[in-house]
Amino acid sequence: MSAPIAHGGGITAAAAAFGGRQEDWLDLSTGINPCPVALPDIPARAWHRLPDRHLFDEARRAARDYYGSGEILPLPVPGTQSVIQLLPRLVDPSGRLAVTDNRVAATDNKIAVTDDRVAVISPTYGEYARAFASAGFAVDAVGDIAAIGGGHRLAIVVNPNNPDGLIWPIETLIALHDRMKAADGILVVDEAFGDTDPAPSLTSRAPQLSNLVIFRSFGKFFGLAGLRLGFAIARDDILARFDDWLGPWAVSGPALSIAGSLLRSDVSPIRGCIDERCAGLHAVLKGAGLRISGGTALFTLVADARAGDIYTHLCRHHILVRKFDYAPDWLRFGLTPDPAADRRLGEALQRFER
Amino acid sequence: MSAPIAHGGGITAAAAAFGGRQEDWLDLSTGINPCPVALPDIPARAWHRLPDRHLFDEARRAARDYYGSGEILPLPVPGTQSVIQLLPRLVDPSGRLAVTDNRVAATDNKIAVTDDRVAVISPTYGEYARAFASAGFAVDAVGDIAAIGGGHRLAIVVNPNNPDGLIWPIETLIALHDRMKAADGILVVDEAFGDTDPAPSLTSRAPQLSNLVIFRSFGKFFGLAGLRLGFAIARDDILARFDDWLGPWAVSGPALSIAGSLLRSDVSPIRGCIDERCAGLHAVLKGAGLRISGGTALFTLVADARAGDIYTHLCRHHILVRKFDYAPDWLRFGLTPDPAADRRLGEALQRFER
Repeated sequence: MSAPIAHGGGITAAAAAFGGRQEDWLDLSTGINPCPVALPDIPARAWHRLPDRHLFDEARRAARDYYGSGEILPLPVPGTQSVIQLLPRLVDPSGRLAVTDNRVAATDNKIAVTDDRVAVISPTYGEYARAFASAGFAVDAVGDIAAIGGGHRLAIVVNPNNPDGLIWPIETLIALHDRMKAADGILVVDEAFGDTDPAPSLTSRAPQLSNLVIFRSFGKFFGLAGLRLGFAIARDDILARFDDWLGPWAVSGPALSIAGSLLRSDVSPIRGCIDERCAGLHAVLKGAGLRISGGTALFTLVADARAGDIYTHLCRHHILVRKFDYAPDWLRFGLTPDPAADRRLGEALQRFER
Repeated sequence: MSAPIAHGGGITAAAAAFGGRQEDWLDLSTGINPCPVALPDIPARAWHRLPDRHLFDEARRAARDYYGSGEILPLPVPGTQSVIQLLPRLVDPSGRLAVTDNRVAATDNKIAVTDDRVAVISPTYGEYARAFASAGFAVDAVGDIAAIGGGHRLAIVVNPNNPDGLIWPIETLIALHDRMKAADGILVVDEAFGDTDPAPSLTSRAPQLSNLVIFRSFGKFFGLAGLRLGFAIARDDILARFDDWLGPWAVSGPALSIAGSLLRSDVSPIRGCIDERCAGLHAVLKGAGLRISGGTALFTLVADARAGDIYTHLCRHHILVRKFDYAPDWLRFGLTPDPAADRRLGEALQRFER
């Protein structure tokens, strides 16, 4: 067991520390679309019955068309977090039997299994390193794709990256895939924030990239993070393993039903709303003299030497943003739900004594 | 990867084989309350936000009061299936490092890990054996608790059992727990069908039974199987492991919100409806001359030498019940939703040429 990672969304703890009713806080600590789409009708049977096969299959077809993954039918999963938890098993498939001589050393009465190595382009979403470290892997946090070498059984690239928004070009990722594949390794590309700009996505290339695993998030872009839904895109036998490890009925009926509808809907109004909210946030941050150093349409990264003080100041105004232990001069701002909230943020920032 | 197990709910496959529109089939193949409760209001934020800590905590408190688990706050999980998948890790905690000398033998260039043994009171829900076999354990399907011995690191009892409805007395299970504990083993009691009759439940004794893990299902009794929600009840460090392995936000916001409401509601009307439906089903089965050999309020087991033919006959009438590869003379009937469906089943059974 490893220590939990602090994530966005910690309104309960923030309100306990700084006062105020939770519902009165402005939560800018996540990267979730603050203008959730209207829920489509959910048939009563989606709640009542174990998730039907046809509901599952229809969600897969809708996801294939939405992501453009060709012959690959994306696998619905209960949030990409659920498959992050399973990734260590993918490179150690039995979970127990993959130990070979060169990884085992006897010490006293114990058998110590020597570590395998995985690479995570860092800094990024912390749960990858946590999952692999928990499973006994050595995790190399590398700053550049060039640092990923033959000793890595699996490499993880979040693209665009969280929290800096860095985008790796498709051809760079394909070259990395080919290098990993040559050494029998796997490349995982997490496209959790890939919906607002589909251009850098690898989903349409996936059928030709046999050692690639792509994770997509459903809730962030559609504003339905409570639903717990994501998709994994990879070759059949890898998806079959995830499916087997998750077990039957891993994804709820309402989630499958909603995905089947919304992935076939016109998403341009959603993109429009997110772009408008992003423009509003940028105007506020620039108006407050803050330097935007990165981000995606769903969040903005600010670099400022006073980040810690700004964070605390905003908490006193019951506004929660995201800070980073590993980068004390960074703050990540999620989108506000409306112009009034932009003004509230702007006024709070104006009151900060620099 | 192991072969999937055939479960109830396979209406898609049944309609493909025997015709008819799925929605016109009468699905009696599951053990789910066919009269789902009215959905309580689900706040928009439960859909929109990552599941809030306070929503999670409130569901835990409601579950503690409902299950009477005293100082133990039950852990919400995305269906008990999700924790069944994790059970092998509980007896091999690191998933890799728990191999000690007496379990390892070198052969050629490989290290073969000798199997650990677990016991499953059988026949029962097949996913336990599948999960442990997948993880490399030897699974002993035992018919009686007396057959569980010191060589078993974990024992599983489904109580009441599925599909025969067998109930083990509380004192027998406590004695088994004490025996398992003395050998550093764990007893898992699956009370998935424990809501209609709380008397045989161990939940109120759990705080005193340190090596006991109880699983409870939410969806079966409340008729909301699509929700994917269950609870694990065990000592703190075991629940912390499950929580860690499932990762953050494993349970959806709507599921937590609904649990917080319904677990505090008056469930006597639900019990009343189930009892009435059970009486209706029993009358139909007896009227058709079938012998009831077991069951719970949510399903009834019939033993009949012609079970296979009855199954096929009912499929031709677009009624799906559950058959069992390992017991070809058994059929399990779930509850019908109303008296009209009882009549439909009765008429179909009357037409069966015995």
